[in-house]
Amino acid sequence: MPAVTLDVLTIGNAIVDVLAHCDDALLDEFGLAKGTMSLVDAERAATVYAAMGPGIEVSGGSAANTATGVASLGGRSAFMGKVRDDEMGAIFTHDLRATGVTYTTPAASLGPATAHCLVLVTPDAQRTMTTHLGIAGELSAADVDEELVNGALITFVEGYLVGLPSAESALAAAVKAAHAAGRQVALTLSDPLWVGSQRDAFCALIAHVDILLANEKEARQLTGKADAEAALAVLAGWCPVVAVTRSERGALVADGTVTVAVPAEPLSSVIDTTGAGDLFAAGFLLGLTRELALPDCARLGALAAAEVIGHLGARPQVTLADLAEQAGLL
Amino acid sequence: MPAVTLDVLTIGNAIVDVLAHCDDALLDEFGLAKGTMSLVDAERAATVYAAMGPGIEVSGGSAANTATGVASLGGRSAFMGKVRDDEMGAIFTHDLRATGVTYTTPAASLGPATAHCLVLVTPDAQRTMTTHLGIAGELSAADVDEELVNGALITFVEGYLVGLPSAESALAAAVKAAHAAGRQVALTLSDPLWVGSQRDAFCALIAHVDILLANEKEARQLTGKADAEAALAVLAGWCPVVAVTRSERGALVADGTVTVAVPAEPLSSVIDTTGAGDLFAAGFLLGLTRELALPDCARLGALAAAEVIGHLGARPQVTLADLAEQAGLL
Repeated sequence: MPAVTLDVLTIGNAIVDVLAHCDDALLDEFGLAKGTMSLVDAERAATVYAAMGPGIEVSGGSAANTATGVASLGGRSAFMGKVRDDEMGAIFTHDLRATGVTYTTPAASLGPATAHCLVLVTPDAQRTMTTHLGIAGELSAADVDEELVNGALITFVEGYLVGLPSAESALAAAVKAAHAAGRQVALTLSDPLWVGSQRDAFCALIAHVDILLANEKEARQLTGKADAEAALAVLAGWCPVVAVTRSERGALVADGTVTVAVPAEPLSSVIDTTGAGDLFAAGFLLGLTRELALPDCARLGALAAAEVIGHLGARPQVTLADLAEQAGLL
Repeated sequence: MPAVTLDVLTIGNAIVDVLAHCDDALLDEFGLAKGTMSLVDAERAATVYAAMGPGIEVSGGSAANTATGVASLGGRSAFMGKVRDDEMGAIFTHDLRATGVTYTTPAASLGPATAHCLVLVTPDAQRTMTTHLGIAGELSAADVDEELVNGALITFVEGYLVGLPSAESALAAAVKAAHAAGRQVALTLSDPLWVGSQRDAFCALIAHVDILLANEKEARQLTGKADAEAALAVLAGWCPVVAVTRSERGALVADGTVTVAVPAEPLSSVIDTTGAGDLFAAGFLLGLTRELALPDCARLGALAAAEVIGHLGARPQVTLADLAEQAGLL
C-alpha cells in the first residue's frame, strides 16, 4: 500500500462566493428556493448579481471548504478542482494554499471563467445559492492526480459534481484509484434539488461509496422516506458509514454496528449557515481518519460547523484544532 | 447657478480591498508602518499577498467609502475614479451602484488592472495597507465629469490623489469647475506618510480648499505641530472649515467662529478601523450640506465612523440614516 500523505483529499467545484444580505422578496423575484443551489448560465448570473446589494467575495466551494476545515483541525488535506488563470482563480488558489491545503490542479489557460456563486443570506441566516460553474464544470479525468488519491486515507467527493458530464469521468477515475490503493471514498449529497435531479447518477456512485454524508432533506429526497431516522436506516443499508445532519437538532450517525444521535453544538449566534455542512464533513471525516469513536467523529463535525455558522462566510476564522482540543476531542 | 443634483461628489482611487487578519510579525517582515498606506508595484504586491492569510475581497477606496456613507445616510452622492474592465472593476462598480452611489467614470479597456489594496488587520484592530494603484493612478482631467461637479454641493477629494502626476490635472479641473459653479471643495489628508512625502502638492491644493479633514497624525505631520489643538489652529488659518479626528478621543472642529471638541461614539467592539476616517467624512460633509450646526456635523461623522469600526470592512452594513434618526441628528 502506498505511504499515507494526506488525511482527506476533497474533490469539487472551485468557486469564489459572492455573499450579500437580502430579504426574502429578492428570492421570490427570481423564483429561488431558499436553502438550495441552482446552476445558471452567465447571463442569468449577471441578472441576479445586478439585483443584489454590495457583496463580499470569499473563496468557497463545498469540498474546498471541507479541505480548509480539515487543515484548520490540524489534518493534512488537499483539494482537486478547476479554476481559470483569471483574477478569481488567483484569489481561490491563494486562499486555499494560505490555509495549508495542498492545491495543485493546474489553472486552465482557455475556456470559461472561474466559477462564482451568488450567496444570498436572508435574515433567518439561511443561504440560497446561484452558481455559474464556468471552468469548474470542466473538471475531467485528466485533472485527477492519482498520487494524491493514493496517499489520502479518505477521498471525499462533493455531490454537486455528480451528474456533471465531464466530472463523471473524474469521479470514476478517483474512486477506482482510491479503492485500488486500499483507501476509502466518501460522498456528500450536497443539495436536495440536485439529488432530485440526478438521482440515477447518485445511486450509481453510492454503490462505490464507503462513507455517506447528507442533511435531512437530502437524505429524505434520495430515499423517499418521511423522516431522518427512516432515511438513515435505508442509507445505512447502502454504505458502511452514514451521517445525516439535522441542523439545530444535531446529527444521526450509523456504522453498521451502532446508530447514535449526537446533539448540535450550542450557538451564541446564527449569522450565516453557509458552509455548515462542509465543516461538519471536515470534522467527521478527520475524526474517522483518527479512528475516534463514531459519536466523537460527529461531535467534531458539529464543533467545526458551529464555528462557521457564527460568522459570514463558509471557512473557519479561528484555528479549529484549538477548539477541538478544548472540547477534548483531538 | 446650476441645479443641485448631489450633496457630495467624491474623487479618489477606485480600489478593491483584500482584507486579512495578521499578527504584528508580518508587518515587521515587510517593514510596513502600522496604520499607514504604502504604494507598491505589482511584484511587491504579489509578494505581500503570498505571505498573507486567506482574504476577504470588499470594494474599498477612501473616497468611494465616503460616497457609500453619504448614500447610507440618505444623501445624494457620486464617485469619480478609474477601474479597468476586468473582474475587480466589475465588482467595484456593482458594489458602489448597489449602495445607491452614482458612478459613471468609464472603465478603461486598456492599461493596468483595477487597483487593489492589501489590508492587514492586526489584533489591535489597526489596519496597515499596501496598495497597487494600477489603472486608478491614471485618472486624468478627461475623466472629470463637469456636470457632476457643477451639481454637487461639495466636491470631496481624497488626499491619496494629491501628488500623483496624472491625477493632478483631474484635481485642478474639478476644483476649477466646482468653484466656477459656486460650490465647495473638501479635502482629506488621507495618510501621514503620504502627507510627508507630498507636502508641497498638499499645500498647493489646500489654498483652494474650503473644508479640510485630517486625523491627528496627518494634521501634525502637515503643520509640524506637536498636538492636535495646535495643528487645528494652524489649519483653521488656511481653510474656512477644519475637522481633526483623534480616534477614541473624538474630533476637534473649527469654522472660524467656533472651535469645538466632540466626543467619539461609544463602541461596543473595535474590530477593524479601516474606513473610520472615510465614514467620519461622510457624516461631517453631509451634515454641512444639511446646514447642521458644526458640532452636529462632527457627531454625524462620529456616528458613521463607529458603525464601520464594529465590523470587518470599510463600508456600512446597516442603513446609517436610521442610526442618525435615532440619534436625533437627521
